Amino acid sequence: MAVLEILSDQRLFGGRQIRFAHDSAVLQCRMQFSVYLPPQATQQDVPALYWLSGLTCTDENFSVKAGAQRVAAELGLALIIPDTSPRGENVPDDPDGASDFGLGAGFYVNATEAPFQQNYQMYDYICKELPALVEAELPLSTSRAISGHSMGGHGALVIALREAGRYRSVSAFSPISNPVNCPWGRKALAGYLGNDESQWQQYDASLLLAQKKAALPILVEQGDADPFLAEQLKPETLQAASAASGSELELRMQTGYDHSYYFIASFIEDHLRFHARHLLP
Amino acid sequence: MAVLEILSDQRLFGGRQIRFAHDSAVLQCRMQFSVYLPPQATQQDVPALYWLSGLTCTDENFSVKAGAQRVAAELGLALIIPDTSPRGENVPDDPDGASDFGLGAGFYVNATEAPFQQNYQMYDYICKELPALVEAELPLSTSRAISGHSMGGHGALVIALREAGRYRSVSAFSPISNPVNCPWGRKALAGYLGNDESQWQQYDASLLLAQKKAALPILVEQGDADPFLAEQLKPETLQAASAASGSELELRMQTGYDHSYYFIASFIEDHLRFHARHLLP
Repeated sequence: MAVLEILSDQRLFGGRQIRFAHDSAVLQCRMQFSVYLPPQATQQDVPALYWLSGLTCTDENFSVKAGAQRVAAELGLALIIPDTSPRGENVPDDPDGASDFGLGAGFYVNATEAPFQQNYQMYDYICKELPALVEAELPLSTSRAISGHSMGGHGALVIALREAGRYRSVSAFSPISNPVNCPWGRKALAGYLGNDESQWQQYDASLLLAQKKAALPILVEQGDADPFLAEQLKPETLQAASAASGSELELRMQTGYDHSYYFIASFIEDHLRFHARHLLP
Repeated sequence: MAVLEILSDQRLFGGRQIRFAHDSAVLQCRMQFSVYLPPQATQQDVPALYWLSGLTCTDENFSVKAGAQRVAAELGLALIIPDTSPRGENVPDDPDGASDFGLGAGFYVNATEAPFQQNYQMYDYICKELPALVEAELPLSTSRAISGHSMGGHGALVIALREAGRYRSVSAFSPISNPVNCPWGRKALAGYLGNDESQWQQYDASLLLAQKKAALPILVEQGDADPFLAEQLKPETLQAASAASGSELELRMQTGYDHSYYFIASFIEDHLRFHARHLLP
């Protein structure tokens, strides 16, 4: 069997929207992800924007709902859209079947707690295994940017701050900005990492950003009608951390927008153009 | 209770994506539909493009997947997105639960056969009851255009050809162009109208277009990798009919595109601009 199995391959804005399956050594399960290859990829290797999705999502939500491929086709950017957790019958889930932990909710960490540590190594999957795989198999350069929504905005910020040399720019929509201090984050970090909160700090974008000046530009988009804003998202902690470290963060508050893909669709063009300024020669 | 119940109301590209419920007198059931109001609608009445969806869809597919609101916001067009059939526990469905007849598959006809004739009056719902309702309740002018996909492309063409005075332009993606001669169409027309095929002709876009020169411009988009092209869609019959009547039809074949919303998303901007040329002063 090929390293990458093609599940579907559809024409979109002159390029190709492809869904792949592959065996992940890091996650120890079979995974699916989607890629958009812009028309330019038939002629040359193109840079890639990784998109990390939020709670309950798969690779399909962003693919279908955000409308990002139109601008990616214009700019010559590939989109790499992974799933949000390991998957499969043998992968442990939240014991109560909740939607904010376990399947669809990997939080982009490397788990250390049983029974999750065998499969839930999403941090390494996103920043190591998946890029190595797609850059070997697809017409991609090694110029990378990363973005995401909600839980995926958290993941994008944490990965970009810790692995700055691997990415040229980072952006986020409605990120969980300070997971050590919000209910979604505390549940996930305790579940995947255990109760020693000192282990959580490596996965908190606000704590990371306060400690050290970011080596890459950061754009954050937040709707002020987002029902999760005050309790779960807390973008003000990111802004304070950025000020403390002298980092380059632009936080844009958008009046009347909520937490949905309609918000993402409204501003994804700005984010792609932001990343293109840093990715393209 | 208000005539229109608001189920959701979300900011999108500076306008509002609203989902409504209402009691339909024509369909004798409670119905849902979606509307996109562009930013311009806060200042003035705006023209409306009606979008008729295909088999199995509700108002949500086009709302979420097509990316049409971006261009609608730029042009100042409202989008009116109805459901594809009457709905509810008391509405009869396909006896075998098939997806090409009954719920989600009203085919935009006025049924005459029992047990469907009581509820399945989608033709009158789309071209009479719904426009009267939304034009009374929302900031809409009476300038209307109509478009749709597959079964909805059939519906848009038939309604526009028969009710040309009510619409300024019509377009379709992958329409069922000659339903009296394809399996989907023959099943639906027999089920809703009975076995007298002379009654079917009033719902066949190719037969209507061959009989009489269309009073409005027609744009049809078709992917050549569409798996339903040869057996179900038959756009060549529409082209022959248009030539016979001297009508203004542009049929665009698009290489490599399939029947999905990725195809619609790739070309919806062209359709909105086509309609805007006829709708706007």
